Amino acid sequence: MDEIITLDYGSGGKKTSELIEKMFVPAFANPALEALGDGAVVPVPQGGRLVLSTDSFVIDPLFFPGGNIGRLAVCGTVNDICMCGGEPLYLTLGAIIEEGLPVAQLKEIIASIAAEARAVGVQIVTGDTKVVEKGRGDKLYLNTAGVGVLKYPGLGPQAIRPGDKVLISGMIGDHGTAVMLARADGGLGLESTIESDCMPLKALAAAACEAGGVRVLRDPTRGGVATTLNEFCEGRPFGIALSEKALPIRPQVQAACDLLGLEPLYCANEGKMLCVVSPEKADAVLAAMRGVPGGENAACIGEVTSDWPGRVALRTVFGGSRILSKLTGAQLPRIC
Amino acid sequence: MDEIITLDYGSGGKKTSELIEKMFVPAFANPALEALGDGAVVPVPQGGRLVLSTDSFVIDPLFFPGGNIGRLAVCGTVNDICMCGGEPLYLTLGAIIEEGLPVAQLKEIIASIAAEARAVGVQIVTGDTKVVEKGRGDKLYLNTAGVGVLKYPGLGPQAIRPGDKVLISGMIGDHGTAVMLARADGGLGLESTIESDCMPLKALAAAACEAGGVRVLRDPTRGGVATTLNEFCEGRPFGIALSEKALPIRPQVQAACDLLGLEPLYCANEGKMLCVVSPEKADAVLAAMRGVPGGENAACIGEVTSDWPGRVALRTVFGGSRILSKLTGAQLPRIC
Repeated sequence: MDEIITLDYGSGGKKTSELIEKMFVPAFANPALEALGDGAVVPVPQGGRLVLSTDSFVIDPLFFPGGNIGRLAVCGTVNDICMCGGEPLYLTLGAIIEEGLPVAQLKEIIASIAAEARAVGVQIVTGDTKVVEKGRGDKLYLNTAGVGVLKYPGLGPQAIRPGDKVLISGMIGDHGTAVMLARADGGLGLESTIESDCMPLKALAAAACEAGGVRVLRDPTRGGVATTLNEFCEGRPFGIALSEKALPIRPQVQAACDLLGLEPLYCANEGKMLCVVSPEKADAVLAAMRGVPGGENAACIGEVTSDWPGRVALRTVFGGSRILSKLTGAQLPRIC
Repeated sequence: MDEIITLDYGSGGKKTSELIEKMFVPAFANPALEALGDGAVVPVPQGGRLVLSTDSFVIDPLFFPGGNIGRLAVCGTVNDICMCGGEPLYLTLGAIIEEGLPVAQLKEIIASIAAEARAVGVQIVTGDTKVVEKGRGDKLYLNTAGVGVLKYPGLGPQAIRPGDKVLISGMIGDHGTAVMLARADGGLGLESTIESDCMPLKALAAAACEAGGVRVLRDPTRGGVATTLNEFCEGRPFGIALSEKALPIRPQVQAACDLLGLEPLYCANEGKMLCVVSPEKADAVLAAMRGVPGGENAACIGEVTSDWPGRVALRTVFGGSRILSKLTGAQLPRIC
């Protein structure tokens, strides 16, 4: 392999084969991928329904505290499948590489993809690589699509009822804040200890669903917690009331957001799960989430109410209420 | 909607919802997509094996004679599933939009995706949109991933035997030549009548498989016929001998390639199928392919032979032979 990726690696010829066979296939070793066909033939458990999901990843920078684009690309799609009640089985991987990317960086990212896929128990079974000219991309964009089997049917915003509780699996706003600070690259003079929360939510989703009473699961990525909760109650005869004092936010995240004029409730998370659950089961689900690594700081942050139809309201520490609308404009481009 | 895409459409907030709900969802209308979850829950026939495939599309220009990036993105992934012996059912769609793309162009491309998906009988069940800054992409990149059920098992290069025949479903090199001429944009002074061959291969693949004796199917896209055939015999105890006079190539494609210093056998095709078949069944498969629209010009172009182990040889019209290696370097970047 050369030291940097040239357009030749996207030709479909010798160099493309070299890229695929030396870099991707050994990292993801499995029989479906090794067949090197146009696609992959894989078994599925009988009689189930499938859960499908896809995400493209255009994050800048590629490497950030707590992860890189490769780890994100596995977690992002795996998490979407888990949020739908699915058990993730297979991923596809598409890479759009900008001419000039150092091969060493690509190698590190592929290793992260492989490690994360192994850890969460999914196989990368087929993929595609394209190379675009310098200035027509930004180092590397990834797409993953995932296939799982439906394990917990019936989840969705349609199942939400007034009186339900709103849980979150941990600290809010870490990913968005970490990436923003990484992008500022020390220019803010902050010595940051904030890391992305990027992680697979498979165990957390399973723990919540096994405890029962779950209405809907969702990972609040782009647009953050406030935007996701708005999606739950838009056009519905109920709203969601959040309690400001119950929100788990790291002091350093709050401080960085204050400095940057941001709001943690609109910051992207990449390893957090919002869970709306029946009031009877809320304590059991919360306890189950807290028992899973990464869920230690799970909290009940609000409830579904008839008081604010179609809206999300924040009960502030001062006793007032303010409406949290969906994110307007782009808080931070290319956060994932 | 605004007239051009701004970064706000990638925020994950209000504008992203507007983009998805006004542009994508109505075009692809189906219950799985309309649920607007993190993924899609879909049924599959019981007891089968799945075929998965993915492709990213970075073609330049977005619109070319015979198609556009949207049509290509459906055909490309559908065809990969068909080449594996699969019946395509579902597609995911990822869009990476460069800031500044006219909404009217996006709308036309989405309409093409929807029309092609309907025509071939697949549903776009989930998707994702990202927006990158101007100069960090090139108008639009698409990724599709496809899920199908395995209908014709056992296809693959491992099934090839000496004596097998090599068939192609029609004219060679149309797509690559059409895109190259579109890119030259009249600058060559050629008034071109060459169109991309971009089309779904579902009916052709089914016709061939139903006739029996098929060893492997493959659509010779990037790298062309010569590169695909090399992949069939690399490291194997047999080679492939092609007959130059049997190759179906339009005179205007040959002329354009001669002018541009290219070779049709290395030009991308987007609606052609290579089929290696047992000698006993070759005539039946050829007749079946010719009976399908788009397969009228199907031809037997060569055979598998022990004479050239691991290599592809072209028997020229002058009675000599020359080796066709895999494509080296990038014949034409961003052809698909």
